[in-house]
Formats: sequence, C-alpha cells, structure tokens
Amino acid sequence: MDLRQTAALSDSFHKMTFLKELERVAWVVERRLDELLGQGRAPIGGATELAQAMRYAVLGGGKRIRPFLLMESARLFGVSEGEALDAACALECVHCYSLVHDDLPAMDDDAVRRGRPTLHIAFGEATAILAGDALLTLAFEILGDPRLHQDPAIRAELVLDLAKAGGWQGMALGQALDLSAERQGFGQADVATMQALKTGALFRFACEAGAVLGRADASERAALQAYASAFGQAFQLADDLLDAQGDAEAVGKAVAKDAARGKATLVALMGVEAAKTRLGVLLQEAEAALAPFGDRAITLLDTVRFAVNRKR
Amino acid sequence: MDLRQTAALSDSFHKMTFLKELERVAWVVERRLDELLGQGRAPIGGATELAQAMRYAVLGGGKRIRPFLLMESARLFGVSEGEALDAACALECVHCYSLVHDDLPAMDDDAVRRGRPTLHIAFGEATAILAGDALLTLAFEILGDPRLHQDPAIRAELVLDLAKAGGWQGMALGQALDLSAERQGFGQADVATMQALKTGALFRFACEAGAVLGRADASERAALQAYASAFGQAFQLADDLLDAQGDAEAVGKAVAKDAARGKATLVALMGVEAAKTRLGVLLQEAEAALAPFGDRAITLLDTVRFAVNRKR
Repeated sequence: MDLRQTAALSDSFHKMTFLKELERVAWVVERRLDELLGQGRAPIGGATELAQAMRYAVLGGGKRIRPFLLMESARLFGVSEGEALDAACALECVHCYSLVHDDLPAMDDDAVRRGRPTLHIAFGEATAILAGDALLTLAFEILGDPRLHQDPAIRAELVLDLAKAGGWQGMALGQALDLSAERQGFGQADVATMQALKTGALFRFACEAGAVLGRADASERAALQAYASAFGQAFQLADDLLDAQGDAEAVGKAVAKDAARGKATLVALMGVEAAKTRLGVLLQEAEAALAPFGDRAITLLDTVRFAVNRKR
Repeated sequence: MDLRQTAALSDSFHKMTFLKELERVAWVVERRLDELLGQGRAPIGGATELAQAMRYAVLGGGKRIRPFLLMESARLFGVSEGEALDAACALECVHCYSLVHDDLPAMDDDAVRRGRPTLHIAFGEATAILAGDALLTLAFEILGDPRLHQDPAIRAELVLDLAKAGGWQGMALGQALDLSAERQGFGQADVATMQALKTGALFRFACEAGAVLGRADASERAALQAYASAFGQAFQLADDLLDAQGDAEAVGKAVAKDAARGKATLVALMGVEAAKTRLGVLLQEAEAALAPFGDRAITLLDTVRFAVNRKR
C-alpha cells in the first residue's frame, strides 16, 4: 500500500470506530430509558396504557444524537458516562415528547415516524397528548432526582437550562413559529431563527448540560455553545437536504413533505448547491469552536461530520 | 344582642375575612403570573401568539386555591408570602396546563371554562397543545430559577416533587385512568384512586411544597399530607355535587356532563345524601390533621370549610 491508501484505510477505520461508539452509546441510553420507564405502577386496569405509550415513544430506536452530544461534552471535562447518563436520558425524553406532539393531527399530522406508526396512530390521540405531557414531566423528575447528581446546584441548573431550552422562548416558540400563519412569507433569516429555536435549542442544551456537569469555565462554555450552534444548523440543513432529495424508505419518514405543505426550508430558499456550500462553512465553524479542546474533542468533531454526511 | 347573635355575627365576620384574604392572595398570584408571563420575546411576527395563548390560559381568573394552599402551608413555618409566591405560581401553571389539555377535543372536548371559550376554541387546537406544553415547561423554569430560593436543594426538591405529582404516576396517570375504556366499570374505590391522582396529587404537592419551603420535620409533613389528602377528596366531592346539582351559570362551566358521558362520579355511585355525609367526615379528618399546628392553622381550616361549602 502506498501512503494515500494507508491514509484512506485509517480514515475509514476511524469512521467505523465512531459509528460503533455512537451505536454503543445509543444502546446504553436505550437501556437506561427502559429502566427509567419501567418503574411505573398500575393501581387499576388501564393504567398501564399510558406507560406503554411512553415506552413506544421513547424506546423506538433513533440515533440518540442529543444524548450522545451531552455525554461527549461532559467527557471533555472528565465526567464519566454513568455520571452524564441520566441528564442525557432527560434530554431524550424532551426530544421524544416534542416528536409525539408535533406529529399530532392538529400539528404536523404525521402518520409515520422512524418507520413505524406515530404514537397517536398506534394509541389514539388522547393517549398521545398525555404520553407527551408525561414524558416532558418525566424529564424534570429525572433531573430533580438526587440520583442524577449529588450536588443540588447542578440539578437545579440543569432544570432551569432544560426548561428554557424547551419552553416558550425556546423549542415551543420555534414550533409555534413553524405553525404560524406568517410562516408562508418567511425569508432565510426568519427560517434560521425559527430553526435555531425549534431544533437548535435542544442541541445547545446538550452541550451546555455537559459543561454544567463538568463545571466548565465561561470560555469553555462559550466554545461549546459556538460548536452547538454550528452543529444545530448543520444538522437541520442536512435534514432539509435529505427531505428535498431523499427517498422515504432510506430516511424512515415521509420526505418532501415541507415542499408539499408549501413550507419554505433553507434549502428551498437558497438552493441545493448553496446549501451544500453552507454545510461546509458550518463544519469549519464547528471545528474552529472545538480547537481549544484539542484532541479531547475528536469525537465531537466526528459527530458534526456524521451529522453533515449522514444519509438518514 | 344576646350571646348567640354575637357568635353568629362573629362567625360571619370571620368568613368574610377569609374570603377577602382568599381574594387578596388570588390577586397577588395573578399579578406575579402576569409578570412571569410578560418576559417573552418576539423575534419574528407570530411569535406573540403563543405567549398570548399562555396568558389567556393562566390569567383568566379562578380561585387560585392551589397557590393559596401552598402559601398557607408555608406560612405555618414562618415562610413569608413573597418567599412562597413563585412556587405557588409554578403550581398554578401546571394546573392551568392540565385544564387546557383536558379540554382538548381528543380529551374531554369542552368548549367553556370559567365562563369563557376554552383555549382551543379561542386560539385553535395546535396553539392550545403548544401553550399547554409551554406552561408545563415554564413551571419548571420557575422552580429551577435561583430567584425562587437561594438554596438549590430546596429548588431541586420542589422540581422532583412537582414532577412526581404531575407526571406518569400522578396527575397524568389520573387523567389516563379517567379516559380509559375500563372507566365504565369503575366502582367507588377505583374512582377514588383515579381522583386521588387526577386532582389529589396537585393538592398534596401544594401542602408538601409549603413544608419543603418551611423545612418542616417528618411529623409536620405527615400531618400536612393527611390534611391535603382529606382536602383533595372533599374538594372533588363538592365539585361532583355541584356538577350533579348545580346550574351552569352559577358554576361557570358545563354541568351534569359527567352523567351525560356515562362517567360515574362518587356522587352517582354513593348517592347525594351519602356524599354529603362523607363530606362531613372528610372535614373532620382535615381538622384532626391540623390539630398539631393549633391556631396557626386557622386559615387552612377555613380553606377546607370553604372548599366543602362553596357554591361554584
């Protein structure tokens, strides 16, 4: 083999290692979520349906990219997987609740998610609303629990941060903007603002939570927030490209639905080529933000590359 | 005036004083909720609709009985109104979110609440779902905020307690049971269990939160929980009696709707007279639970009497 072949082989081995790690962490997260959702009680018949619906919504697989980001951010500061795991699960509960409610008939009215019927199709609308509510509440039960961290100041700070990220000035506001009547007239800046709230806020929380668990200093937090911001934009842009170009079977959910609904995405507004160029810029921004962490941040770097290059 | 007249006059003056105090605290709570819901931002057009819907759901008046219970419980231990106010507002946010989601077409499908159109009638279903989600999230934002209490251990404990009270093993489970197919065959014990979760859990949280803020000891907490449990049952029974006997105008919402839906209430299962007798027993239980606090608990005593005798 010449040097170029060696480099290519090493690169592909590195990618494979990353994907294996992503899969392993997703499995760890799934197992812990299973535990956290297995402590229910059923005082009378019918009580188990809510818990079953919650399990259906949360344990349906998925890349678990938000928990992964949280745990990798925490690891920058020497926080072990076990110490970050419950915060990661709380975040995933909020993500899953948002999918359940966004899929409702009154919202995006989606029937398929991750290749399966959405929750309201499988369990009915009332149970889907309730299961979403209960998952959102469970996230804070997990964060408030002394098992999460021995220092209550850390627990309270994570609660405050997650509530802000998910709430009326974060993710919920983003979804409101996405649904609003004015949506039709949105320009690129409006769509970017909406996405920074709707999907960006939870990515920023993931990295911030890692910093909180790791007791990071202000400059480290700022660096991680810059990374998270670029990551969120890149993730969403890649998603929009998949929606514009992908096929439903590979992506695992309905595609081209934004266009069908007359909702302008950034890709539609700027065109596919410009979107790909923008993806490259965001990747560079994410890399630059991680520079202060040196080699410790190699997995976070892999994660944004993965988000940009993924096929589903 | 003879002694009996004097006693009757003193009693009616006492009642009036209590009602004035209940009104005053409701006003204080309303004003603080208004502040907490006035800090939104509107980055692009349409963003204010969500905040408006949240304000509509929360600032529509109401007795504010849960915040009142929380603040009065805290006052037993010398905690001032100002120190308990934000926790009381967080609790009210959870109560209001639950009303918004319970009223949805897929749930109880109610068009009138507190004499006004319900949120989904006024703002549409999608915004009602989102506003409920955002109010639930806001509750935890308020509890996680350092302004709530300087001790993060208190903040984290309130978060854990509220999440448990509202969640999949508390209020949300109660609502799931209320909606479940098995509901038709419920006996008295089943209905009692369902109500202890659906409405009782938040009353118990109100008193527990007062105890947490007041750093109450275990026996004080147990006494308050016994009071809260009797209070919750009495409140619900009085509500069912109003539903069975009242007229919509006086009550401010649809009446006799449980019967119309074929949902058995405790009143329907045990009869009006037995229900009134049971109310008397619960009142005695609440009084007995408060005995250890002596005269300090006079307002909590008034509160359960009010709940039992109210006409709406």
